[in-house]
Amino acid sequence: MHCAVVLLASRAAFAAPLRACHAMASNLLHVLPPQGLLRPLAVPERLLLGPGPSNVPPRILAAGGRQLLGHMHPEVLQVMDDIKVGIQYAFQTQNQLTLAISGTGHCAMEAALLNLVEHGDTVLVAVNGIWGQRAADIARRLGASVHELLKPPGEYFPPWDIEEGLVRHKPSVLFITHGESSTGVLQPLEGLGKLCHRHGCLLLVDAVASLGGAPIFMDQQEIDILYSGSQKVLNAPPGSAPISFSERAREKILRRKTKPPSFYLDMRWLANYWGCDGEPRRYHHTAPINSFFSLREGLAMLAELGLENSWEHHRVNCAQLCQGLRDLGLELFVKEEKARLPTITTVRVPEGYDWKEITAFLMDNHAIEIAGGLGPSVGKVLRIGLMGCNSTSRNVDRVLHALRDALRCCRRSRL
Amino acid sequence: MHCAVVLLASRAAFAAPLRACHAMASNLLHVLPPQGLLRPLAVPERLLLGPGPSNVPPRILAAGGRQLLGHMHPEVLQVMDDIKVGIQYAFQTQNQLTLAISGTGHCAMEAALLNLVEHGDTVLVAVNGIWGQRAADIARRLGASVHELLKPPGEYFPPWDIEEGLVRHKPSVLFITHGESSTGVLQPLEGLGKLCHRHGCLLLVDAVASLGGAPIFMDQQEIDILYSGSQKVLNAPPGSAPISFSERAREKILRRKTKPPSFYLDMRWLANYWGCDGEPRRYHHTAPINSFFSLREGLAMLAELGLENSWEHHRVNCAQLCQGLRDLGLELFVKEEKARLPTITTVRVPEGYDWKEITAFLMDNHAIEIAGGLGPSVGKVLRIGLMGCNSTSRNVDRVLHALRDALRCCRRSRL
Repeated sequence: MHCAVVLLASRAAFAAPLRACHAMASNLLHVLPPQGLLRPLAVPERLLLGPGPSNVPPRILAAGGRQLLGHMHPEVLQVMDDIKVGIQYAFQTQNQLTLAISGTGHCAMEAALLNLVEHGDTVLVAVNGIWGQRAADIARRLGASVHELLKPPGEYFPPWDIEEGLVRHKPSVLFITHGESSTGVLQPLEGLGKLCHRHGCLLLVDAVASLGGAPIFMDQQEIDILYSGSQKVLNAPPGSAPISFSERAREKILRRKTKPPSFYLDMRWLANYWGCDGEPRRYHHTAPINSFFSLREGLAMLAELGLENSWEHHRVNCAQLCQGLRDLGLELFVKEEKARLPTITTVRVPEGYDWKEITAFLMDNHAIEIAGGLGPSVGKVLRIGLMGCNSTSRNVDRVLHALRDALRCCRRSRL
Repeated sequence: MHCAVVLLASRAAFAAPLRACHAMASNLLHVLPPQGLLRPLAVPERLLLGPGPSNVPPRILAAGGRQLLGHMHPEVLQVMDDIKVGIQYAFQTQNQLTLAISGTGHCAMEAALLNLVEHGDTVLVAVNGIWGQRAADIARRLGASVHELLKPPGEYFPPWDIEEGLVRHKPSVLFITHGESSTGVLQPLEGLGKLCHRHGCLLLVDAVASLGGAPIFMDQQEIDILYSGSQKVLNAPPGSAPISFSERAREKILRRKTKPPSFYLDMRWLANYWGCDGEPRRYHHTAPINSFFSLREGLAMLAELGLENSWEHHRVNCAQLCQGLRDLGLELFVKEEKARLPTITTVRVPEGYDWKEITAFLMDNHAIEIAGGLGPSVGKVLRIGLMGCNSTSRNVDRVLHALRDALRCCRRSRL
């Protein structure tokens, strides 16, 4: 053996510690049971009207609190099949490659890019808030050549700007955000799929904040990759994320020259585990089983309500909120009505106020969460979310009442 | 504008569809609400004595079924702090960089490799079952130069074999599995940390299946990266995964020349989000909040019971199971008693039986899950898990009774 001389380990030297290991165990415990962990879990009730997560209705909480089953048991595979058709309905798609990622919305963004993009691919990212910034960051980590189309927070991309970017950069993927939760902008999608395809580009859309709250039609709009999250309009806890790939996107994945830099999110494996490839299902990873139970119920509630009804609820309650905010003398951040996200409304931080005092006042005095800005909108806006079961006229009244109270109490004396 | 001629999009052409979008919505619904999703969720009660997930006690189910809070609310940050000290206790470490990954155990394996390994790094992987195979696959995806140390399923690695590999390949990371759930092997870890450090290598240990069931001492054993899962001994649902990094490992991450190919799992961001870097906490991703509630309770129950008691329960019940299996005339797959994983016991598929018939018989007639092999142990073994609250003398009796019944009923007539 060429390395015999440098081998310091010997059979005799290691045998004793192995045998003695268990007996010595209690003497080796140098980290004691933490006292804080011995106190009961404290979870106060709050109305979550920030940009998500939203409150979870009892039916979905109950589903998530059901006893576990094995991740390959037929009942769990059935739940996954139910989720698949539920996503197909919510996305309005017949794509076979439709499933839920075992992670939150961010993880779905990574899964989309990581499977589509190879080293050296050109990616065009429409950046008008934090999600475009993040997608550009991820694509760069994957070795893509990334170009950014920029708009100020609060604005959306008209198709001529996008076409100019497609012509100039010849990307293989365009990333755009349907519901820009950091700015409250709803991106119009009509015609973008066709436009991308005319330029040999795939259309990747983030609908984390908009799905179920604003119309989206994956197939008719020729969207190639669409993903969302569980914790917004679907009212399930965060931890799973719907995603779907068109045939064009699936073919790009199948044409890859290299494996994606993740096994956990490798769509070839996930396609099999989710029964999307016609092969017998193989174990891939242990899925977050009770997150899937919750997601199934969230999708079931959307199917029972109907997409059109869900869109209409969000439209009507958002309109009521916007009118109420204007009546309070506040200025909506997104100018054009048609570009306002029906799930998350942004309003300018009023002159003479500190946004942190307003959000803290609502939390402390009304047990209501609303949020400040995020990324490029920090310090500029307050964000009020009305998503899924939280999108009700009564909640609009509650948050407007609380805001009126805050505007009276939080004005800074120095101004 | 240099590309004016090829621009097909015009303001007029796009304005009409945008305005008409909502009114057209209901005509565009070509995917109808799926009927299967309108049936109630069906979750039968089962005793989960496979390799995980294990059953979840009522206290943990109740925690996971609590109403949500925002991912940056002080109560959630407190829960994360509780989880951190709970992991420090379970791992027996004082590492500051200790947190839970927002994904299952597989995701923690990726997080470990993805943060540690850069393109061109040399990684040595000890492969004696499926987990080594997977780690090698992931490291290759990351562009590492991967060398495998091989052992047949059922065997473990003595230190002299590991040292030979360290000397020959000069890796920067050694991956080894503490609890090889596909084969039932417990890998002795004594001395491996020192050995790795003597050769300038970091020690990365997978303890998904062993944590809480067999002694492990991250600091004394000089383990650099240790991770586990929530759904084994900790008895929480799958969806979060404890992980910790030594100072050596943290320094390697800080020395990286390139960003890791994931934002979701980037340990610099996660360290901040988990309050491990001394900086004010910033939003990184929306955590699986109620998975964290469950994980906290699982760690709290372990802290209340005490690690030594937990190890002892698993040792005693596993010994009772092994004796009972031998009394049934079955042959244990792992020869050496000290190398048997106390959480998952493997037994050879007896001659004249089809393993699938045995596992199906237990499921159909006794509502008990046990599993066949996985990866290199497929067709060779049955796997019986006794983890956390499932590790009881009564469950040993139940599964032995059911197996006796199966051995009587499943013998194949042709043999």
